[in-house]
Amino acid sequence: MASAAETDAMRRALRLARNGPRGLNPQVGAVILSPSGVVLAEGFHRGAGTPHAEVDALSQLHPGEARGTTAVVTLEPCNHTGRTGPCAVALLEAGVARVVYALDDPTDAAAGGAARLRAGGVDVEAGLERESAEELIRDWVHLQRTGRPRVTVKWAQSLDGRAAAADGTSQWITGSAARRDVHVRRAAADAILAGTGTVLADDPALTARDADGTLLEQQPVPVIVGETRVPEDAAVHRHPKTPLFFATHDLAAVLDDLGTRGIQSVFVEGGPTLESALLREGLADEVLMYVAPVLLGGSRLALGELGVPSITAARRLEVASIDVLGDDIRVVARPVHDTQGES
Amino acid sequence: MASAAETDAMRRALRLARNGPRGLNPQVGAVILSPSGVVLAEGFHRGAGTPHAEVDALSQLHPGEARGTTAVVTLEPCNHTGRTGPCAVALLEAGVARVVYALDDPTDAAAGGAARLRAGGVDVEAGLERESAEELIRDWVHLQRTGRPRVTVKWAQSLDGRAAAADGTSQWITGSAARRDVHVRRAAADAILAGTGTVLADDPALTARDADGTLLEQQPVPVIVGETRVPEDAAVHRHPKTPLFFATHDLAAVLDDLGTRGIQSVFVEGGPTLESALLREGLADEVLMYVAPVLLGGSRLALGELGVPSITAARRLEVASIDVLGDDIRVVARPVHDTQGES
Repeated sequence: MASAAETDAMRRALRLARNGPRGLNPQVGAVILSPSGVVLAEGFHRGAGTPHAEVDALSQLHPGEARGTTAVVTLEPCNHTGRTGPCAVALLEAGVARVVYALDDPTDAAAGGAARLRAGGVDVEAGLERESAEELIRDWVHLQRTGRPRVTVKWAQSLDGRAAAADGTSQWITGSAARRDVHVRRAAADAILAGTGTVLADDPALTARDADGTLLEQQPVPVIVGETRVPEDAAVHRHPKTPLFFATHDLAAVLDDLGTRGIQSVFVEGGPTLESALLREGLADEVLMYVAPVLLGGSRLALGELGVPSITAARRLEVASIDVLGDDIRVVARPVHDTQGES
Repeated sequence: MASAAETDAMRRALRLARNGPRGLNPQVGAVILSPSGVVLAEGFHRGAGTPHAEVDALSQLHPGEARGTTAVVTLEPCNHTGRTGPCAVALLEAGVARVVYALDDPTDAAAGGAARLRAGGVDVEAGLERESAEELIRDWVHLQRTGRPRVTVKWAQSLDGRAAAADGTSQWITGSAARRDVHVRRAAADAILAGTGTVLADDPALTARDADGTLLEQQPVPVIVGETRVPEDAAVHRHPKTPLFFATHDLAAVLDDLGTRGIQSVFVEGGPTLESALLREGLADEVLMYVAPVLLGGSRLALGELGVPSITAARRLEVASIDVLGDDIRVVARPVHDTQGES
């Protein structure tokens, strides 16, 4: 059983972890506790090539000071020599007596740290605040498993599936609560993806903003896909993050490229053409719909062709949540991949 | 304050009322209680030209037996001489000492019964189980106010607003729980409306059925609208209720005609063309959507053209409820008529 001091330390470690960058390495935090539960040191991982969180925390102690202490870490200490040595060994060498961690290392390369620590005589406890730790590195795990960022395809539509009225006007189908929610989610994403068609038509800023238009602290990298050239004076060029341009229609290749850059999550707000293509090609991990309680009719559809010849080939989704935001309905759903496209 | 015996009697009267037909007159039930709360007689209204519920109940008593009793009625006793005399007068003449009713009479012609009873020295109490009584005659009130049945436009669609896949297949977009719900609502409607296009394409039975296909006890009158001739062997001709055919596109006129027949509610399952027309013309009182958690894409839309030129003219709905039925989402919403089409 973890002590109250260890639970507090784990929550602190989870907060510390978020100080590190999202990228090719996971966000990890660590706290070193004295046997009586006093915080002796804190650490977090600052990205590939820098010390891991445990080592960062240990480095703040005098030689010998770590002996008999408890290390509280959000992720199982690694058993892997990359650009840094295995954390399991560093903890053993420092004389740490007990290790409490939240989440087993989900990668084959780095797993085994707990076993190595136990073999070295360390008391190891796993699973404290595990769900929070899973949430923390969910996108990184996805990137590890697939080589691609987790892709959320977002759109706003009327109840009858239209994105705009006959003349193309769409501001605002949805209300302010839905728009605020979108900006919070933009800020939480590593990248925001749009097609050149939408950039040319709407000249979107692709920034995450407050209700009064102020830029939020976190901003996604704008990623523009398509073979049409974007003008020099497009708003996206004034984005606080340098935009990436991919003059291609090969969306899988774009996602692969973003994965190699350590982009763990992509928020797609790029117009019906791009979004339909991602869904058609099975590249969407999550669908985020804001449905306004209006009917529009007409031909300006939120989604176009999805390559569904017959009802048995319908792209089935698992609905994760349905919430009311102001007057609008937010639906979060995930494509069910197992039988998709088989019939 | 109503006594427990009066509350029980009102609930009984509400059940009795449903024995009467839905038509040009409201469903009303009545119970006569002795001063000690014993049920002496029950009655309900059997339709235009027959005695009202109170008179029906009084008629079961011996002369003089009603003196000093309490009449419990679901609707304010009428003060109106139509094909029958005013119930308020009948109650006064019978010597009833107290009248408890649920709902004020919503019509100008028949209102005033309570005042007349009070003027005659009767103790009158209003509002007992009012909400149930409102629910009971909601559609009749609508018919009284508008001259037309209450119109519910129902459709099933994918999240992206499609009614079918590319090849036209749609069985089953939605699951069994949604389909059961539809049949229960069909049975509760006075009429079911479809366009000739749908009748020719799908040959629907337009019956209300159990999960195993058994006909439910109540069946809506099938109403077919459109100028194309329906073949003699169409399934609708085997419907337990005789179908009505209207060879017109004037939907307002059809609804007016149904109103004169005492049809209080219409359930529309008639295909995108008919449903879009009803919505476009502002003739829908309620929208009932069953949204399956699938994406279909393509061109087979659940709704077509609604005549919305610009976003400011969007047909705004007030969402009454959002429920999950099996895997599907049921949305009940009502068009907001005040600003519709103004811009």
